[in-house]
Amino acid sequence: MPSESNNNLGVVQPKDFVFKSEEGFALESGAILPELCVRYETYGSFKNGASPVVWICSPLTMDAHAAGLHEEGNPKTIGWWDALIGPGKPINTDYFFVVCSNTLGGCKGTTGPVSIDPRTGEPYGSKFPHITICDMVNAQKKLADYLGITIISMVIGGSVGGFQALTWALEYPDFVKRCAVIASGTKLSAQALGFEIVGRSIILDDEKNGLANARKMAHITYLSAESMRNRFDSAEHLPSDPEKFYTGFALENYLNHQGEKFMERFDANSYLHLTWALDNFSLEKKYGSLENAVSRLKSEFLCVHLSSDWLFAPDESKKLAWALLNQKKIVSSVELDTNLGHDGFLLEVNDMGNLLSRFLDPQAVDSPDEKYVHFAFGSKKNINRIFDFIPANSSVLDIGCGNGHLLHILWREKQIAGFGLDRSFNSVLHCLNYDVPVIQSDLNKDGLSQIADNSFDFVIFNRTLQETQNPRDVLLEILRIGKQAIVTFPNFGNWLVRKTLLLKGRMPKSKYLPYEWYNTPNIHLSTLLDFTTLCEEEGISIKSMEFANSNIFSKLLTKLGLKNLGAEQVIAVIEKHST
Amino acid sequence: MPSESNNNLGVVQPKDFVFKSEEGFALESGAILPELCVRYETYGSFKNGASPVVWICSPLTMDAHAAGLHEEGNPKTIGWWDALIGPGKPINTDYFFVVCSNTLGGCKGTTGPVSIDPRTGEPYGSKFPHITICDMVNAQKKLADYLGITIISMVIGGSVGGFQALTWALEYPDFVKRCAVIASGTKLSAQALGFEIVGRSIILDDEKNGLANARKMAHITYLSAESMRNRFDSAEHLPSDPEKFYTGFALENYLNHQGEKFMERFDANSYLHLTWALDNFSLEKKYGSLENAVSRLKSEFLCVHLSSDWLFAPDESKKLAWALLNQKKIVSSVELDTNLGHDGFLLEVNDMGNLLSRFLDPQAVDSPDEKYVHFAFGSKKNINRIFDFIPANSSVLDIGCGNGHLLHILWREKQIAGFGLDRSFNSVLHCLNYDVPVIQSDLNKDGLSQIADNSFDFVIFNRTLQETQNPRDVLLEILRIGKQAIVTFPNFGNWLVRKTLLLKGRMPKSKYLPYEWYNTPNIHLSTLLDFTTLCEEEGISIKSMEFANSNIFSKLLTKLGLKNLGAEQVIAVIEKHST
Repeated sequence: MPSESNNNLGVVQPKDFVFKSEEGFALESGAILPELCVRYETYGSFKNGASPVVWICSPLTMDAHAAGLHEEGNPKTIGWWDALIGPGKPINTDYFFVVCSNTLGGCKGTTGPVSIDPRTGEPYGSKFPHITICDMVNAQKKLADYLGITIISMVIGGSVGGFQALTWALEYPDFVKRCAVIASGTKLSAQALGFEIVGRSIILDDEKNGLANARKMAHITYLSAESMRNRFDSAEHLPSDPEKFYTGFALENYLNHQGEKFMERFDANSYLHLTWALDNFSLEKKYGSLENAVSRLKSEFLCVHLSSDWLFAPDESKKLAWALLNQKKIVSSVELDTNLGHDGFLLEVNDMGNLLSRFLDPQAVDSPDEKYVHFAFGSKKNINRIFDFIPANSSVLDIGCGNGHLLHILWREKQIAGFGLDRSFNSVLHCLNYDVPVIQSDLNKDGLSQIADNSFDFVIFNRTLQETQNPRDVLLEILRIGKQAIVTFPNFGNWLVRKTLLLKGRMPKSKYLPYEWYNTPNIHLSTLLDFTTLCEEEGISIKSMEFANSNIFSKLLTKLGLKNLGAEQVIAVIEKHST
Repeated sequence: MPSESNNNLGVVQPKDFVFKSEEGFALESGAILPELCVRYETYGSFKNGASPVVWICSPLTMDAHAAGLHEEGNPKTIGWWDALIGPGKPINTDYFFVVCSNTLGGCKGTTGPVSIDPRTGEPYGSKFPHITICDMVNAQKKLADYLGITIISMVIGGSVGGFQALTWALEYPDFVKRCAVIASGTKLSAQALGFEIVGRSIILDDEKNGLANARKMAHITYLSAESMRNRFDSAEHLPSDPEKFYTGFALENYLNHQGEKFMERFDANSYLHLTWALDNFSLEKKYGSLENAVSRLKSEFLCVHLSSDWLFAPDESKKLAWALLNQKKIVSSVELDTNLGHDGFLLEVNDMGNLLSRFLDPQAVDSPDEKYVHFAFGSKKNINRIFDFIPANSSVLDIGCGNGHLLHILWREKQIAGFGLDRSFNSVLHCLNYDVPVIQSDLNKDGLSQIADNSFDFVIFNRTLQETQNPRDVLLEILRIGKQAIVTFPNFGNWLVRKTLLLKGRMPKSKYLPYEWYNTPNIHLSTLLDFTTLCEEEGISIKSMEFANSNIFSKLLTKLGLKNLGAEQVIAVIEKHST
């Protein structure tokens, strides 16, 4: 849906907002900037305050030019997130008023080291005071106030922009309805921090070429090993020049070009100050702990991670989503499958657009293609019984939540605090359509260890048990994080199953077991009796048990008390033995 | 078993070998070194040529001091691979004569930029000619000749030392019996190359501190994200000094220390020349293709990869092992599970020692603990029938080979060219004990796509089908790489299975199905009829079928022709329909 050339914004003009007051603009460090200039662009119309606002936080070395063109007909002047912002695009400027500003400390119009210090009439240069991510956001807040904005529908940022978006939500919790944090986290990893530290050393030790070399190094961290291999492994190379230690590899030319371009467009002092700010960003340090930080938050969150991002590796970045979930904050989290590395946050605009349009306005988006609905086998009967079972106002985690329909109706009808977990990206899209918070997570890979004990009144485990790699461990885990669990599974002891195997000598297929033996996701099937035996062994109480049967003999056998023979589908409510 | 302090080598002395001749020492580039000095150490006694020789190739910036002490009682002077080399250690100096030399182009005694050019009486400095990995090995060969060595039992190297070891085997194929390539590959990845290129720019642009900064950057690439997080995330930090952009983080102090130490011990010109040599190393480039290069090889290979190594990522490094396997060269390959990153090749000495002692001398090592033998359920009957089936002198791949026993007896009795594939590290140890070449690989993760079409006369797939995630695809794959396949699996249609399910209503357990439903690795069970039906659908011919039955009724039913009811275990020989 994004990036059609016929619906872009056309030429846009940056504007400057200058904040002057007697006290000046105070930084977190206590230092004062006598004057603050913020360069910004806006897309769409504010309609005198009637339009909802989307606020874009720019990444490390980007400017305020997120969308549109700076020069008619010149595609080289296109904004860095143009595919996402414009009329009819995921951040739809027909509806939203969109603002993006250049970062404090940068060198693209907003006050920074290249700006003139009004006290001396000279550029600040190396005397520019040290700034923090919070200072950047406070400067943006001044701009928002100036523009007459009283609430932001969504603040969004990628990479260091994500630090800013998060800081918006932390510092101005009532001002920010939604917060989208893309390819970012709660602080830099030690590895990323290491590269930053070395980068600054290179710049400080070599005034002439340090900035170019630091950028070349940083640039490698923005790519993935795979994307570099694809691009450079079989690329032509020029004759080498051993005298100058020049290899002639296409990769060397590419990196040199990146370094040179950056020298032309960026200021070394800006780079030092911006990286200093991001290196010192840490929710843990500032608020005592991640939990303390998260407890302040009131916005709804969307966290997007990129599978091949090693600057903000998904595992590290996901910690924010888990911390939000543990405090029942509204959060959805998704990992985009990409080989583009960290740069994917600027390039994976199709998936990101699909997520953002749903996050911004669930109702506005058509239901996604039903062909993706691998969970369609969760029968209506199950869902109805589970629905009946859950009391109003309880907290619920639905593992393998699929399209989120059950959580949606539980939320609507019973005001539950409900969260979904599913491994599929398309399930996340469905859930966002239903306005159901969902964490994309693969139980078999990621487990549930990030979720705190007794987090939920109910854990729903609908037709997923037999698909897990370790059903026993999973049962114990869901009773660690939930006070009770509702588990449903197909009964391999059902007479139809036995009959198929007995008489036909084939692995059974049925309404509840619709797969071939060689492609079934049901890798740990059990009979009702197997299940109850395991529960007994593991100290799990079965509070109640119901059966969903479609066959008349199944129903009859169940009625006669021959449950293991009769049950086609088991719906069990379990809890730990009180000790 | 390694690194007991009471059996170390004590104080060792480096020696210098000087090669002088009228023609000088010719480099690959055509340049001539008028004089070549190689500094080296030896461990153990050569016994006048009676001892077998192990040749150690040193990594990028290491010296000849691989083992022992340089100063009595001073543990700081210990060699860099001391845990592996010494009396009673994995590379046992009671038996082996071990040689390690400093690399050509280095700065630790062997000719390099800091050496005096006899033609000028001045150090070579920046005028030192460019060298290649092959030049390094040629210099080592001169030393070997001087020492009277006529054959090397094993050449081993980690990281860039691995490039040298591989080059030994390529350039002197009849001189090298075994070759161990540790945490290395056939060339640098584009990502690693990128960091090298940037490192040289930093050094060339900043004579004063460039070497330190380049080393700091490189040092990060030697660690893993996880090991850095573990070490630095919660480390104390000193007060920062914003004026100097000094964060005070323990990580910054650590990196600065690494940079300073390196400046003291290393020469910038050496570093430039050594990295130049490794950046330009590429089997693909030098020999036209990896296949061409591998076709020259005659040594037995052991390739060791480290799971968290991103400088030589396992996937990339494994390509050498697959290329060797595809040409039926004797190769074993293993991936050590470590979070230490590339540095693991200096630190994971226990696992490496276990591998090396077996690779060097299978008979000398006791059979490993049988508790590791998860494959013990592969019944003797199966193995005997498979053994009978395979004609002498054929080529065989055993997928899920376990301890390698079958391949071992096939090799011994029928002179087959046999290779194993198994996912477990302990299986690799067992196989090395049996002197059976084995590739550590997880079928479900890695697949078989790296193996060429029709590589083997027979693929053995003994009791593994039901453990795979996609049995159908796997069947098609094994008939792509093998002309025929021998597949064995438990028959879920057996009357005992049916009876258990029918009468007990429990998931069946038996001799052939010994697991609980919740922990069984048998995730895709099938009946004999399911299997034959699938074969028919996929154009697979069943050439013959036998059954391994322990129960008397099973035997009877099978005899009566009720195979799907009778068979407990199926042994089928399959091939593709000729088209």
